Amino acid sequence: MKFFGKEHYITSFSAKHQPKYFVDLGETFQVETHDCYGGAFTSESQLRTSMKMDYINPATGPIYINGVEKGDILCIEIENIELDSQGVMVLYPGMGRLGNKVKIEDTKIILIENGTVFYNEQLQFKVRPMIGVIGVAPVDGEILSESPGDHGGNMDTKYITAGNKLYLPVFHDGALLALGDLHAAMGDGELNGSGIEIGGKVTLKVSKKENQPLALPVVETLDSYMFIASEKTVEKAAEKGMITAVEAIQAKQSLTFNDAYRLLSALCDIQISQLVNPLVTVRISVPKELLM
Amino acid sequence: MKFFGKEHYITSFSAKHQPKYFVDLGETFQVETHDCYGGAFTSESQLRTSMKMDYINPATGPIYINGVEKGDILCIEIENIELDSQGVMVLYPGMGRLGNKVKIEDTKIILIENGTVFYNEQLQFKVRPMIGVIGVAPVDGEILSESPGDHGGNMDTKYITAGNKLYLPVFHDGALLALGDLHAAMGDGELNGSGIEIGGKVTLKVSKKENQPLALPVVETLDSYMFIASEKTVEKAAEKGMITAVEAIQAKQSLTFNDAYRLLSALCDIQISQLVNPLVTVRISVPKELLM
Ligand SMILES: [Ca+2]
Ligand SMILES: [Ca+2]
Ligand SMILES: [Ca+2]
Ligand SMILES: [Ca+2]
Ligand SMILES: [Ca+2]
Repeated sequence: MKFFGKEHYITSFSAKHQPKYFVDLGETFQVETHDCYGGAFTSESQLRTSMKMDYINPATGPIYINGVEKGDILCIEIENIELDSQGVMVLYPGMGRLGNKVKIEDTKIILIENGTVFYNEQLQFKVRPMIGVIGVAPVDGEILSESPGDHGGNMDTKYITAGNKLYLPVFHDGALLALGDLHAAMGDGELNGSGIEIGGKVTLKVSKKENQPLALPVVETLDSYMFIASEKTVEKAAEKGMITAVEAIQAKQSLTFNDAYRLLSALCDIQISQLVNPLVTVRISVPKELLM
Repeated sequence: MKFFGKEHYITSFSAKHQPKYFVDLGETFQVETHDCYGGAFTSESQLRTSMKMDYINPATGPIYINGVEKGDILCIEIENIELDSQGVMVLYPGMGRLGNKVKIEDTKIILIENGTVFYNEQLQFKVRPMIGVIGVAPVDGEILSESPGDHGGNMDTKYITAGNKLYLPVFHDGALLALGDLHAAMGDGELNGSGIEIGGKVTLKVSKKENQPLALPVVETLDSYMFIASEKTVEKAAEKGMITAVEAIQAKQSLTFNDAYRLLSALCDIQISQLVNPLVTVRISVPKELLM
């Protein structure tokens, strides 16, 4: 199995970055990733606002996928996520959705062992590993890896995890995949602005669907397709995701707009991935029975 | 088992309404409910904007609960929801979150049989029964049954369903419970502005927790407590729900604010109940292990 070490990473998604790794369609490979701070926190005495950081979310890559061309859909099967043995959660006044309630700055190092998070002496819980940042080179320009978008990126969507598939549009030959920002756990909303930030190793396999348009990233779970939309506001992201979902239902079920819109309301869920990045990310989750 | 017929209903929640039914703590009882339109739609030729309606969401009650006093928490166990044999979904230009895409007005009558929704010849699916409107008399004034609030009301939360418990604050002796607006199915967001609107019969049992404050409605599922907050915007509702959830975690786990806020971000989900009522409703879902 090919192994792509974390020494090669990008801090923005762009076609201008030269590929560092190469992989074939159908080949299983492993990608090692830094945590979102590049591993800078090793002690609870380090406070976030005292640390100089030029970037966050280093993403291992770019990985050139042989045989994938502009206009294809890239299908990424996430086979396994192996977490490092400790994660970190920083906090400072102003951070996250209740930032005005944070009165002191502190850093918490959190040990992980045998799939268990040791939060404190009273409280342990199972890890819920997920990939915060995963994406391809966008259609043009450069998008910092702290931002989500139609190219993927910092989507912070907890269903991007082992056992699920992620579909991304391909804007450039080879796709130029990169990933990082793993979390040992993160709830929907990422409400304080971070998950349990951690490095690790992700095992992946990629395939393609030739010459198919894809408006935005889609996650396939056991029982649903999730249309992932990132925009400045929840309202705008919701509208983008809803339109894409209704059009997909309408096409697959041969329905009027109204009858597809009814199914959206009766059977599909709007869900929030994160509310804390430069753009917010929502999902429209559609039961598979409506799209198969 | 006592049976409370749908002939007595309210269209607003208020302590000014005289109770029509009386029940004891611990007693199982059944409540018959109209659909949200009072059963007005019997044919697909009836269009919503041509129908004169003075109110929506008639809620059966008020039900006076003997032994419940102001300042208690009312615990409502939902034992069963039996649906009528047909539901309705109207649509007209402007309705719901994609209302600007609706070009024609139409009404769809939807048959339900043996727990199955017959949407059309190609598509059938299982019912997902839920209660759209359930609440008590608010602290003061009168709140139309089209609106949600701290008293409950039109929360349109799909987890208010058989097998789960709903906790409501009690503002007046007897609580003055009322319910209606059942749905055969409704997704998170209620994105087109309605579920599959239907009447039915709900079997309930109530108990109380004496003299305990409750800031907002809470739903207990198998594995979580959901704090339900309704406000003008998603942001405001989110803030109210998050503060309540973090305070509960902090108290139960004896944590600093920061460490409880970390758990909110790592393990709790912000979820959307509905985006289409006079106030929007969000949930903060907290795993039970954090509050037990
Ligand atoms: Ca992230
Ligand atoms: Ca992160
Ligand atoms: Ca409703
Ligand atoms: Ca309704
Ligand atoms: Ca509603």
